[in-house]
Amino acid sequence: MAALALADWDQSAAYGAALLDLLRKVTTVDGSILRPCYGEGEQRAHDLMAQAARELDLDVRVDSAGNLIMTLPGSDRLAPGWMTGSHLDAVPDGGNYDGAAGVVAGLAVVHAMRRAGFVPRADLAVVAFRAEEGSSWFSGPHKSHFGSRAMLGQLSQQELSEACSLADGRLLHDILADAGFDPDRIAPGQPLLDLARVSAFVELHIEQGPVLVERGLPVGIVSGIRGTLRARNARCDGTYAHSGAVPREYRHDALLAAAQLALALESQWDDWLAAGRDVVCTLGRFMTDPGRHSLTKVPGEVQFTIDVRSEDPTLLTQARGFLERSALEIGARRGVRFALGALDIGAPALMDTVLQDDLRTLAEVQGIASMTLASGAGHDAANFALAGIPSAMIFVRNDHGSHNRDEAMDPDDFASGARLLAALLIKHA
Amino acid sequence: MAALALADWDQSAAYGAALLDLLRKVTTVDGSILRPCYGEGEQRAHDLMAQAARELDLDVRVDSAGNLIMTLPGSDRLAPGWMTGSHLDAVPDGGNYDGAAGVVAGLAVVHAMRRAGFVPRADLAVVAFRAEEGSSWFSGPHKSHFGSRAMLGQLSQQELSEACSLADGRLLHDILADAGFDPDRIAPGQPLLDLARVSAFVELHIEQGPVLVERGLPVGIVSGIRGTLRARNARCDGTYAHSGAVPREYRHDALLAAAQLALALESQWDDWLAAGRDVVCTLGRFMTDPGRHSLTKVPGEVQFTIDVRSEDPTLLTQARGFLERSALEIGARRGVRFALGALDIGAPALMDTVLQDDLRTLAEVQGIASMTLASGAGHDAANFALAGIPSAMIFVRNDHGSHNRDEAMDPDDFASGARLLAALLIKHA
Repeated sequence: MAALALADWDQSAAYGAALLDLLRKVTTVDGSILRPCYGEGEQRAHDLMAQAARELDLDVRVDSAGNLIMTLPGSDRLAPGWMTGSHLDAVPDGGNYDGAAGVVAGLAVVHAMRRAGFVPRADLAVVAFRAEEGSSWFSGPHKSHFGSRAMLGQLSQQELSEACSLADGRLLHDILADAGFDPDRIAPGQPLLDLARVSAFVELHIEQGPVLVERGLPVGIVSGIRGTLRARNARCDGTYAHSGAVPREYRHDALLAAAQLALALESQWDDWLAAGRDVVCTLGRFMTDPGRHSLTKVPGEVQFTIDVRSEDPTLLTQARGFLERSALEIGARRGVRFALGALDIGAPALMDTVLQDDLRTLAEVQGIASMTLASGAGHDAANFALAGIPSAMIFVRNDHGSHNRDEAMDPDDFASGARLLAALLIKHA
Repeated sequence: MAALALADWDQSAAYGAALLDLLRKVTTVDGSILRPCYGEGEQRAHDLMAQAARELDLDVRVDSAGNLIMTLPGSDRLAPGWMTGSHLDAVPDGGNYDGAAGVVAGLAVVHAMRRAGFVPRADLAVVAFRAEEGSSWFSGPHKSHFGSRAMLGQLSQQELSEACSLADGRLLHDILADAGFDPDRIAPGQPLLDLARVSAFVELHIEQGPVLVERGLPVGIVSGIRGTLRARNARCDGTYAHSGAVPREYRHDALLAAAQLALALESQWDDWLAAGRDVVCTLGRFMTDPGRHSLTKVPGEVQFTIDVRSEDPTLLTQARGFLERSALEIGARRGVRFALGALDIGAPALMDTVLQDDLRTLAEVQGIASMTLASGAGHDAANFALAGIPSAMIFVRNDHGSHNRDEAMDPDDFASGARLLAALLIKHA
């Protein structure tokens, strides 16, 4: 970091902040950020970053999935190099920073390196992934994160041929082909780059929860990206009955049974937390049947979802067992039947512990107050970690959460987070 | 009852069963019973009963609300007389017996009296009320039971001018006028008949709950019609948040709070039952917001209804206090805000205890197995009781509940119930 004096860094941080402002400007339509996966707004964001990269004299290329790779050449161009970046798409009516902050932070670091005449040992690539927010823009059975997963050889043919644009009904495969990319090169186990040439990946991202705001800290160091246990189509079936004429002992009330399951999970959650385990639990959708329910009917049906997340794969398995057992017990006691449906587990992705230690030390040296925390949301970095590439994440404080137009990242916090990113890359790259 | 030998009664019971079959026939459209309040099917039912009454040589008249009054003249035509009956309309896609069984039972009793040459001391009126199921056919702020409440001077001008047909949008007032009735004669405190001339009212009705079926008893004697405590538009507001990124301590989960309120009410219900008190509790509608909820969001809003019913007005007041207190406590503990909205109490209507005793004695004498139970659903008899007229109700066993096409009343059970009605009327009328 010696090569980057504070005054220099301030200029690069200001460069990044200005680039983020420009990004907002070129991707705002009728007052809302509009950057759909593989859509016009996302392309405009890619074009803006590619232009900035060319102005920094970086090697610019686009892979078969449309990911943008902007490389600062190292002194040894054949050595495995670092990669940093994030995505440029955004959820509908989302904010300017979710994803984009990480791409811009990478460019700001390179901007500082260029100004200081710093040449990394190996190539340093800033990457803008495509379509991290696929869940918001594509229906069908898919796991989103199309860009980074295609790059890493994790995207299946089924996803390419069944993920379907919610905007115009086109299939992901055809969208890629029409955009001039090469979907037929994308296949499981066939990464779009030589993974042996990627020594590590680091992603800067706004925090999507309130922890850094609540703790008054500008920067977080991510311990891991929580895995998920999900029931997308759970239900409880009881018996509809007259709310006045049917006594307690003859009722099979689906609502009370499902409410009990929700509170049983909450109570188990408390026990897990008391034991120091990482976990969050949510029943996000929960409803009696609008077509049949009424003020004067005992509810005969409730549909609901369950989303349990933890860094600890064992806990997710235990949670599955707990839910299945509780559903059986409550169902038997109340004469109702739970059908939780598929209880899918998505593996957690732990961040590299050596890199976490590095980040903690570098933050302390630079006087950046930080804490270590888990990421509850998914990120492109998780896919790198799951591919066996040492990965790290830096969170930047952000008010009002993400995935909404009120995202609020202070430019000073962005400057601190990007400075920590710079320190890590200068140490290793 | 001496005047009605068993063989004679069997013939009158068969007459009633045949009349019910004919009623089903003339009011079935495309396989469904269709008898909307003040609609064509209800009118057809009224015409059928009026014709039957004329064949029994009864005085037949229609009042200003369209109620049909079929009178067997007594020996003293000026003395206060008894009234029996129920309604002839039915909910959409309902059954044949809810309401109609009570009108036909009255005619079957008169049929038996005519055959036996029995002349009551005072006039005995069999009445077919209009529009008891107004809640299913009319929107707007109204309390349904239009026919009996108009007859008793309980229907407001506001209901007449604001209750609005769900079928064609016409107002209740105009529907009555167009049908040739006289809505301008209907007013609060102005009954359509001299209440001093009604010495008592008794209504036979199918049970709408499963109690008689479960207990294996053909007939029930109603202790009272439960009053209601209702929240039609209750809600709980918390804060939407990311299901992965927001830890437990920063959540304000509206779903868990509302689930806790539901289970708190259930637990209090258990305590009330353990103390021997009459009460049923239902949250019939209960849902997160379909426009905003998601698998991956902590729910920020739940809308729900509450329906507590009891014969005991004190319990309804206590339930209101319990709900308000619990909502405050749970809201404060979880950082959410409950808005239960108007918690309206509808008064219970107790059946006359002397008449209940009479019915129990008469049932025993006649070898009809019976039990005493509360009615959870509302009935025209409640309006008579609330008008200060001694009232009684006889329930007849009915499988599959009511308000659906699967209502199933055994003709033998109908015969038993109507025989008990006959015994009561012969004793008093």
